[in-house]
Amino acid sequence: MITVLRLGHRAGRDPRISTHCALVARAFGAGAMLYSGEHDSDLEKSVRDLVKNWGGAFEIEHTKKQIKTIKDFKGKNFKVCHLTVYGHPVHNVIKKLRYFKNILIIIGGEKVPSEIYKLADFNISITQQPHSEVAALAILLHEYFQGKELKKEFAEAKIKVIPSKNKKIVKKSK
Amino acid sequence: MITVLRLGHRAGRDPRISTHCALVARAFGAGAMLYSGEHDSDLEKSVRDLVKNWGGAFEIEHTKKQIKTIKDFKGKNFKVCHLTVYGHPVHNVIKKLRYFKNILIIIGGEKVPSEIYKLADFNISITQQPHSEVAALAILLHEYFQGKELKKEFAEAKIKVIPSKNKKIVKKSK
Repeated sequence: MITVLRLGHRAGRDPRISTHCALVARAFGAGAMLYSGEHDSDLEKSVRDLVKNWGGAFEIEHTKKQIKTIKDFKGKNFKVCHLTVYGHPVHNVIKKLRYFKNILIIIGGEKVPSEIYKLADFNISITQQPHSEVAALAILLHEYFQGKELKKEFAEAKIKVIPSKNKKIVKKSK
Repeated sequence: MITVLRLGHRAGRDPRISTHCALVARAFGAGAMLYSGEHDSDLEKSVRDLVKNWGGAFEIEHTKKQIKTIKDFKGKNFKVCHLTVYGHPVHNVIKKLRYFKNILIIIGGEKVPSEIYKLADFNISITQQPHSEVAALAILLHEYFQGKELKKEFAEAKIKVIPSKNKKIVKKSK
């Protein structure tokens, strides 16, 4: 089980970025996303509506206490992996990470408290350049699952896309 | 040379998503990003300021005529690759794409005109699930460069991050 923890969501400023984080988490094989910062029912509704149509069992929940959440996961034998530009390059760490099945992946907001660097079992960087938590999460999951996530099927999907050379082909069921 | 074309930017709604697209393009080895939709000097300034500090030669420019831009690239022998959930799965196409050195990667806004599906030499999907153009771009470049982009060095960088287990280590020069 992979769970993502998105830190410091701001409903006014981050709605689309946090939505992208949740959809990437789901599409690339995570089972849930927790988020700290502001509670945002619109974010939750848009993700839950998408899950209803596109299938699978992805969950999204708000957490008020991010540090306690991380400690609870560690107590439940999850390895904690924090994505940060300052961490170890992903290609040096990914083999070790694959030994573990239960992982909490933390992705940052603006300022990440230093306590989180210390609580993390792995601080991992995806390049040493500033870019995007959305991209960092996708690359980590892609490397972790070694591309198998690209073929993942989602149970009870009402909408399915059929790959095509140059057309939009969508299968819908009730 | 890889150039990204981001379609239909909306300054009010998309500033952070388009910034993430540009930063991912740069960090994962593209040389430039063009964008259509609204002109946005703040977006351009934030990307150019980042390039000044973090190095390399990445460029960002607005284009008023997206279809003409695509045709011009085709005229200059670029292969056009359009990222869309409806396209061919990336793992089936990536080997073919690697034969080409000059590529225009198109990433969508809300509604992509059907002409673009036809102009594209490759319509490529990164999973058949809805997620994020930021993630799709990162995965495509990561697959195209086969992970080598993760070790890319940026010339004349004033800021460099030194990877670390649990600290922020940054080297700054003037």
